[in-house]
Amino acid sequence: MDTKKPQQYFREHKNDFLSKLKELVAIPSISADVEHADDVLSSAEAVATSLRSIGLDNVKLLSADGGKPAVYGEWLKAGSDRPTVLLYAHHDVQPTGEREKWHSEPFEATERDGRLYGRGAADDKGGLMMHLAALASYLESGEQLPVNVKCLFEGEEEIGSPTLGAILEGNRELLQADVMILSDTENFAVGIPGITTQLRGLVYCSVLVAALEKPVHSGGWGGILPDAALGLSKLLAKLTTDDGLIAIPGIYDEVRLLPEEEKQAIRELPHDVEAMKRHAGLLADVEFCGRDGCAPGELIWHQPHLSVNAIQASSRKQVSNIIVDEAWAQVGVRIVPDMSPERSLKLLVDFLREEAPKGFRVTITPHGSVPWWRTDTTHRAFRAAERALERGYGVKPVYMGCGGSIGFVEPFEKVLKAPALLIGVEDPETAAHSWNESLHLADWEKGVSSMIELYAELAE
Amino acid sequence: MDTKKPQQYFREHKNDFLSKLKELVAIPSISADVEHADDVLSSAEAVATSLRSIGLDNVKLLSADGGKPAVYGEWLKAGSDRPTVLLYAHHDVQPTGEREKWHSEPFEATERDGRLYGRGAADDKGGLMMHLAALASYLESGEQLPVNVKCLFEGEEEIGSPTLGAILEGNRELLQADVMILSDTENFAVGIPGITTQLRGLVYCSVLVAALEKPVHSGGWGGILPDAALGLSKLLAKLTTDDGLIAIPGIYDEVRLLPEEEKQAIRELPHDVEAMKRHAGLLADVEFCGRDGCAPGELIWHQPHLSVNAIQASSRKQVSNIIVDEAWAQVGVRIVPDMSPERSLKLLVDFLREEAPKGFRVTITPHGSVPWWRTDTTHRAFRAAERALERGYGVKPVYMGCGGSIGFVEPFEKVLKAPALLIGVEDPETAAHSWNESLHLADWEKGVSSMIELYAELAE
Repeated sequence: MDTKKPQQYFREHKNDFLSKLKELVAIPSISADVEHADDVLSSAEAVATSLRSIGLDNVKLLSADGGKPAVYGEWLKAGSDRPTVLLYAHHDVQPTGEREKWHSEPFEATERDGRLYGRGAADDKGGLMMHLAALASYLESGEQLPVNVKCLFEGEEEIGSPTLGAILEGNRELLQADVMILSDTENFAVGIPGITTQLRGLVYCSVLVAALEKPVHSGGWGGILPDAALGLSKLLAKLTTDDGLIAIPGIYDEVRLLPEEEKQAIRELPHDVEAMKRHAGLLADVEFCGRDGCAPGELIWHQPHLSVNAIQASSRKQVSNIIVDEAWAQVGVRIVPDMSPERSLKLLVDFLREEAPKGFRVTITPHGSVPWWRTDTTHRAFRAAERALERGYGVKPVYMGCGGSIGFVEPFEKVLKAPALLIGVEDPETAAHSWNESLHLADWEKGVSSMIELYAELAE
Repeated sequence: MDTKKPQQYFREHKNDFLSKLKELVAIPSISADVEHADDVLSSAEAVATSLRSIGLDNVKLLSADGGKPAVYGEWLKAGSDRPTVLLYAHHDVQPTGEREKWHSEPFEATERDGRLYGRGAADDKGGLMMHLAALASYLESGEQLPVNVKCLFEGEEEIGSPTLGAILEGNRELLQADVMILSDTENFAVGIPGITTQLRGLVYCSVLVAALEKPVHSGGWGGILPDAALGLSKLLAKLTTDDGLIAIPGIYDEVRLLPEEEKQAIRELPHDVEAMKRHAGLLADVEFCGRDGCAPGELIWHQPHLSVNAIQASSRKQVSNIIVDEAWAQVGVRIVPDMSPERSLKLLVDFLREEAPKGFRVTITPHGSVPWWRTDTTHRAFRAAERALERGYGVKPVYMGCGGSIGFVEPFEKVLKAPALLIGVEDPETAAHSWNESLHLADWEKGVSSMIELYAELAE
């Protein structure tokens, strides 16, 4: 399959696609904020218009159960002997967080030092525009698009894809494909493409330790009242060992042991530890927590991890000499193959219940779970992706994990039963979900170029 | 000394004094709020006007170092063979807290079920009006006031009396007296008067455990980053034993052992434990923390106590799946005779430093200390107070401690070197500093009646 014409078309028109991306970024499609419901709809309509304009057919909005609209479009003229590829991205974005922390307007995409800054510039309007640009480069260059294509660009990924399962179930035939390309993940580093084959899951709950109807004066009462802040601290302190291992008995029982060659492969990845420290924002006098012989990738991708996401008892702003009435925390455990989400959540909740300090009213509220996901890479689509990414980036891609949990991958695999290629355009400096989110423009171009190659590779 | 005429005058005019109290409550003299600076001045002027109107001389506002005004007034015509009594109360008040929790307007004193509700109705405009009513009942009934009197009604007690020491130092001769009556403490129970002879002190500090410049995604980073929320929890958990004793080595070394007869005397006080639970707002399924053979008074008045007044890492409102950048807490220790504030604060700070979790940036900030206070009761003024209170209330007064810390008592004793009678009009249901503060009206009348007796007793 010849990709010269679409590649050339893209080189000549990349600024047009970037302009379109900037237009998309200008729509504050924050799915978590009811006040931006109209913007989510506007961004869906803008995406639909773009899909129509590059020649896709049957473009329409799909939604289910009152959820936010996904955009569908297809091009099925490659012939029935060619595979059908389903492209996924999402057009909704995170809230901006503190506006004053942004160096430029979040909804005014701004180029600086080879990056495009703006909310959604990378996550995931950048991913969406990668597909759109690659498709357009075929359809508008006169070269035949070598595969049949279906696009599903979701509108509620940032709130956990609550109705995506229903959309997939309700449109099973419409969406059926031979292979899926899901673009919402990270590359290993700037210039080094990644294919994500494993995601951690998540179970989490909150715990409330209470003793009083209201805070009281610590002088007047200190000595006979239970101290909920201390009670909660003692409970949380039991959750991990001083080495940072989870101290819940049995929690590691189901963890799949990583074969030595896989550990070795992760150790050999070009982890740039100093750059990672910068991206994590580690304070100057603080170090990573390591374990002997474990590369960061092994700890983040393949080991479970417990974190206390928030604690509050009274507040820093309103502190006074009181005995607090109650103390609250949220605890989350990232889970890995082969940990059962149900069992993991139960172990966490039971541990908190059993170790709960005596003499308080302790309430544990399980909040939910997301399963881990892992794919095997024997399907030939992975070989196609390896070749395409190497051609687009000039270096071999890295098979990698992702420490976070992405809710949408499992429903796709379950309903559509096709191999899933997780290929994204974010890099470790992207700061998705944080302030000053940005897209690395050279990597984005390499991503589009790779997709042009990948459509061709998948057709072989 | 005959108190019949002033007692009768008070009985006949008590509603006039209550009206004056209501007028004072209507002035929102919140010393902590700069926006109410004018109101603090207005309340000082209103108090000065009242003092003048009942016949006090040399009435003026005293202030130092730009602090809030205290009101001074004197009546020195009893003769040089009669003692001089210095009366202390304060005219500033606490902020209201959440307005919607009040059942009536905080600055509109409202009678309900034998109590007067309003901010400052008890703490301490009620105490101030007790003195004013007792003095007026002498001066306006035609009966000779049996002692020389000086009044000092402070305007910044609720912010820790920052310039009171300077006012006292600067007016040492003006304020010199043979005995002081400081009215800002509690009675033991409704109908049972108290003479407070001991106050706990306080030392406190904050602790900040930090690792990151900003919070980061717990999926993306969980496994290699230190968790400040867990680090802080582990540190706080070490501060006390599971029995609620302070676990800082050496902290109990200086605690004065209570003689068995004093312990026994406290056990014999009519502690109404069920009522105390109600006042503390204990949840239905929660109990007091006790120790074998210790009455609540022993634990609250005579034992040190550590509390964690607030913890915050992220917040309950903004929780998300992050690793927090930092976690913060304030820790306070109430100290008792003979604990040195400096040593106690150093032990607390050193313990937090030494036990600080490794791998974080830990900052301990000492915030200050208030010494404990204890008086001996051999001075004949205490016998006078016993007799006067028994006559006013119809029952013998209770010698009691106070678990809280009152900053103004020490400077008074140090500068004026006179015995200090701590006698107040609050009762355990008063809810000073909280919403729905109230004055028990029958106890307030008994308080005024006791003061009329006390001035006479002190003259004997």
